[in-house]
Amino acid sequence: METKVVLDTLWVLITAMLVFFMNLGFAMVESGFARAKNAVNILSKNFIVFAVSSLGFLFLGWGLMFGDGNPFIGLKGLFFLSGPDNSPAVGAAYRGVYSALSWTGVPLLAKFFFQLVFAGTAATIVSGAVAERIKYKSFILFSFAMSMLIYPIVGHWIWGGGWLAKLGMFDFAGSTVVHSVGGWAALAGILLLGPRFGKYTEDGRSVPIPGHNLSLATLGTFVLWFGWFGFNPGSTMAADPKAISHIVVTTNTAAAAAILSATLTSWFLLGKPDLGMTLNGGLAGLVAITAPCAFVSVASSLIIGLIAGILVVLAVVGFDRLQIDDPVGALSVHLVNGIFGTLAVGLFAQDGITGVATGNGLFFGGGTKLLLAQLTGVLSVGAFVFLASLLIWAVLKATVGIRVSLQEEIEGLDIGEHGNAAYPEFLTRKPAYSLVLLNGGAARVGSSQSLSEGRK
Amino acid sequence: METKVVLDTLWVLITAMLVFFMNLGFAMVESGFARAKNAVNILSKNFIVFAVSSLGFLFLGWGLMFGDGNPFIGLKGLFFLSGPDNSPAVGAAYRGVYSALSWTGVPLLAKFFFQLVFAGTAATIVSGAVAERIKYKSFILFSFAMSMLIYPIVGHWIWGGGWLAKLGMFDFAGSTVVHSVGGWAALAGILLLGPRFGKYTEDGRSVPIPGHNLSLATLGTFVLWFGWFGFNPGSTMAADPKAISHIVVTTNTAAAAAILSATLTSWFLLGKPDLGMTLNGGLAGLVAITAPCAFVSVASSLIIGLIAGILVVLAVVGFDRLQIDDPVGALSVHLVNGIFGTLAVGLFAQDGITGVATGNGLFFGGGTKLLLAQLTGVLSVGAFVFLASLLIWAVLKATVGIRVSLQEEIEGLDIGEHGNAAYPEFLTRKPAYSLVLLNGGAARVGSSQSLSEGRK
Amino acid sequence: METKVVLDTLWVLITAMLVFFMNLGFAMVESGFARAKNAVNILSKNFIVFAVSSLGFLFLGWGLMFGDGNPFIGLKGLFFLSGPDNSPAVGAAYRGVYSALSWTGVPLLAKFFFQLVFAGTAATIVSGAVAERIKYKSFILFSFAMSMLIYPIVGHWIWGGGWLAKLGMFDFAGSTVVHSVGGWAALAGILLLGPRFGKYTEDGRSVPIPGHNLSLATLGTFVLWFGWFGFNPGSTMAADPKAISHIVVTTNTAAAAAILSATLTSWFLLGKPDLGMTLNGGLAGLVAITAPCAFVSVASSLIIGLIAGILVVLAVVGFDRLQIDDPVGALSVHLVNGIFGTLAVGLFAQDGITGVATGNGLFFGGGTKLLLAQLTGVLSVGAFVFLASLLIWAVLKATVGIRVSLQEEIEGLDIGEHGNAAYPEFLTRKPAYSLVLLNGGAARVGSSQSLSEGRK
Repeated sequence: METKVVLDTLWVLITAMLVFFMNLGFAMVESGFARAKNAVNILSKNFIVFAVSSLGFLFLGWGLMFGDGNPFIGLKGLFFLSGPDNSPAVGAAYRGVYSALSWTGVPLLAKFFFQLVFAGTAATIVSGAVAERIKYKSFILFSFAMSMLIYPIVGHWIWGGGWLAKLGMFDFAGSTVVHSVGGWAALAGILLLGPRFGKYTEDGRSVPIPGHNLSLATLGTFVLWFGWFGFNPGSTMAADPKAISHIVVTTNTAAAAAILSATLTSWFLLGKPDLGMTLNGGLAGLVAITAPCAFVSVASSLIIGLIAGILVVLAVVGFDRLQIDDPVGALSVHLVNGIFGTLAVGLFAQDGITGVATGNGLFFGGGTKLLLAQLTGVLSVGAFVFLASLLIWAVLKATVGIRVSLQEEIEGLDIGEHGNAAYPEFLTRKPAYSLVLLNGGAARVGSSQSLSEGRK
Repeated sequence: METKVVLDTLWVLITAMLVFFMNLGFAMVESGFARAKNAVNILSKNFIVFAVSSLGFLFLGWGLMFGDGNPFIGLKGLFFLSGPDNSPAVGAAYRGVYSALSWTGVPLLAKFFFQLVFAGTAATIVSGAVAERIKYKSFILFSFAMSMLIYPIVGHWIWGGGWLAKLGMFDFAGSTVVHSVGGWAALAGILLLGPRFGKYTEDGRSVPIPGHNLSLATLGTFVLWFGWFGFNPGSTMAADPKAISHIVVTTNTAAAAAILSATLTSWFLLGKPDLGMTLNGGLAGLVAITAPCAFVSVASSLIIGLIAGILVVLAVVGFDRLQIDDPVGALSVHLVNGIFGTLAVGLFAQDGITGVATGNGLFFGGGTKLLLAQLTGVLSVGAFVFLASLLIWAVLKATVGIRVSLQEEIEGLDIGEHGNAAYPEFLTRKPAYSLVLLNGGAARVGSSQSLSEGRK
Repeated sequence: METKVVLDTLWVLITAMLVFFMNLGFAMVESGFARAKNAVNILSKNFIVFAVSSLGFLFLGWGLMFGDGNPFIGLKGLFFLSGPDNSPAVGAAYRGVYSALSWTGVPLLAKFFFQLVFAGTAATIVSGAVAERIKYKSFILFSFAMSMLIYPIVGHWIWGGGWLAKLGMFDFAGSTVVHSVGGWAALAGILLLGPRFGKYTEDGRSVPIPGHNLSLATLGTFVLWFGWFGFNPGSTMAADPKAISHIVVTTNTAAAAAILSATLTSWFLLGKPDLGMTLNGGLAGLVAITAPCAFVSVASSLIIGLIAGILVVLAVVGFDRLQIDDPVGALSVHLVNGIFGTLAVGLFAQDGITGVATGNGLFFGGGTKLLLAQLTGVLSVGAFVFLASLLIWAVLKATVGIRVSLQEEIEGLDIGEHGNAAYPEFLTRKPAYSLVLLNGGAARVGSSQSLSEGRK
């Protein structure tokens, strides 16, 4: 087979493997930021979600996203990759029903696997935001809906040749398609679920609930950073040396800048450099550079990262003030910076910097044309995903239920949902409010109470 | 050098690195599923076993496996890669004594490293099954025997051009060569070692001994899944775009299906979706698809995965009933599904689906010819590896001993074998039965006792 | 673009990603070998250090190291990769100011990223050695100095076409440039910081302070080993099949041999096979083979590994006797074996074994010419890095301070520096000496006291 096909296939498959590996990163970040009593539940969710996505995307998602169809959904070759396709033929030589990806000259199953790992990422983002109170069964069912319907439909609009692509919106590796989609779905879930028991006091104060294992959270963040070198540079879906080298460096520079700005912001605002903020800063920079990584200069990636790191700290504080209880900061990382990164294309893009004709962004003399297209994408995707997710969560709530019982939530979902303990041999302290409740006391949590006082 | 050699070498080396990384996966799965007091011992075994395999396979294993010889063992270029070899020359142009691998056009040392990481995998599988009671020294010595003798001899039969290869048995990436070889060796070890102290009561009930860290077990399973994208697609030993894309997708689909079927099976049988079963389900699917990944369709891989996930749950329950004490489920994953995967070739193979002329399996009109060849492989390998391992374990038992003292087993192998504690600062509970014994009480464990009651 | 450029770029970027991933390895090894109360601090340092290095190397480090200049520093294109450069043009076709890397035909940003991950490694080595007592702020500032000044200047001498390169010194992947540079900087820091409180008694005995989590330490070591398959073979900066296959095998063989020799040495000296020694043995072998991996045979790599494994155990014991308090053994691994590996080139090199004209080493009939060049490199780099680091640490000590307060050190840096606890829910025992001090007792630690007695 022709050498270019081999080269491109190696690049697409190896980067897809790196993106797959991000599932480990999410599992460790999310369980590390949650309490020990819910660790098995989070690990289970983050492990099974990729299995669910793999089957959901195979059965229907791929077809809806990349099948030829109308500007809103794919209609041909819908089920089980069943449409005709002569990949790796490209361009005019392509004969098949998945023509939105006919620009990349790799076999059909390489395209499928690469797109699948992105679908899985969108689904896994939800897990952390709804952690410590959602029913396992409901999460699994929502994940099927996510990978089979919500993600592929939006994906069709932007990457499947749909109406946003035609409008001139650009999202290179998925600040919107993947990250803000995950974020909007998570927000809908959080609003229907409500906060965790004990998170907010009656007089409106927020009770810190620290994560049980910051070693695992740090491990997970490193793994995600590593995986992002698949996520962003791999989205060329071709081994183009200049482009992939450029994207590797913009990706890394944004992460580095965001880590420093988030650390300094938390140092300034909170008095000390909080590790959770440092880690989420890195993720924020990575999410923000995901859309623009191929369209902006290294210097711009530095600025985008600096802003992302500040944004994520402010967002964590802000969501907490609004009593939107997101145990791992998923909204601040994926939704807020997914939106910011998408808009950043409209601000910082430089036409053709790696060969893609985006036009220039606002800061480079391109006016507001690109920025408005990006904004249209942000708003329309947000409206659709939020409403569709709200509907699905509501249906689940009305049928199988979405929240575990208060008793189970207090005792931990690990025993209640799985019959397992993550660390059965280690002695742990119990937060005071759970003891109060279990002893028949009032559920109200005193405003002066914090976890560190819970040791008995 | 010609481009194809470069491409194939990149693929072979990068996938070999992924397979190497599976050592981390095994170390985390096996230590996570064991108790904290034995964690250092398991980590030590799983760390040193690859060092042992690296030297054992270099000194002799490679030559026995791939040296030209008779249908049963290699005889030429036996020691330290010392035979003549003009790789990357292929086919008729090849001049050397390792002609069984003359079909792949990469340098000799790339072939060696790729094969080495597979040898290491076979050896490391044993570690988990014999955990929590085996002497460190004996495990090291057995691992030398495994990588220098047992694994290479069987490998010669199937991948070294030996009698099973000539018979028409197919094992693409090693359901038999690697996984069931590891499983048979483990079974022999378990039978000679006997169960862990306290695992079975006098009246024959099984006492649950939960793993000490399910975060690490989950981490390890993700790493193994990631590594399998080297294990299976890399076994092409050539960067063939269609074949490797196909294998990536069959591999992933089988894993996904098995995760779901194992989870549902455990939900149904045990009442709740046990995380350990979910994780072992994924591994079972991966083991089962290892032999057939290049010979079956994506749809067949889905069915193979579904079956594997059910099998592993039933096998875990079954081995426990037989009082075959396998702390991590290694037999259920690697032996049972290694056998099933090998037979699945005979059932689901479609001739030439990625270019290999296997003939069709039973379900695709090929009759029982292929199935019988597969069965012959399963039985002959099983007989040889089980008996050879039994012999070696027996010799070790009669000389250096294979089991630690009861006192050491109760106190934990970490202090006894290594003088280390894995988590010296953390307070842990002790299982009641160990306290009983240490206080001079009877060793008998009451049938109503379980670990969760052990907290004092 | 021409195929060779694509192949080389894939290799350089993928191996660079593996080297990036080593940051996770260092974070896990170093936090695992330290106490739980300082885990957040170490994780924070090891996470932010790569961000710091990324920016420091981008702003100035790259230019100082690879900019055309004099034999001591780069002078052209100093800041922010701003010099002219027509990469991937090579050799005579190259037009630009970074001519020291004009031999490798990949885009400028691929060269930059590959070199950046090495700069980050040098900086991260320091973290473990100064752990459990250094101020976070000072470490960050030192890391900027390391990645912007110290590392690039030495790097210019050897890899930037400077005076040591001209002298005929060879350091293939950085036993000196990366590892001993990190080691010398760490030594300077340790000497100015002094040992941790409680590490040495008044009568000069060393108190063992075991690491809090050997699972993480093992995990980290596997990740480092994995990453080294990027570090060493990637340093070809070209996809040369024979060379990279050779380097993969020498690298792995040295690690394997060192693991066995370190384990046996600790078994013999200490009575039991200590897991920490086994892990550091592997790292020692990897550091030692880093300089010679491309210049020596597989048999020589085995011998180099065997020696490295013995050296690291003796060095750990030796530094402890000298009361040089290095919590993770960074000096024994990176400094001692960085020096040994560099000298090993002068002993074991075989001219042109992978195509580089090194001349033969002493043991292969080349006399002392190469050995003396290597020794010159070791001594000059050692003198410069040690003195420069000492100066910077001293300036930091005199300004922002480098050591936390005794109170903070005893309570743990996690709360003091970050306001976090790594494991807030788990109950831990406190070492007796900290209780003594906190209760107003004398700071003196009794000679008979050890951590295991600290449980109350």
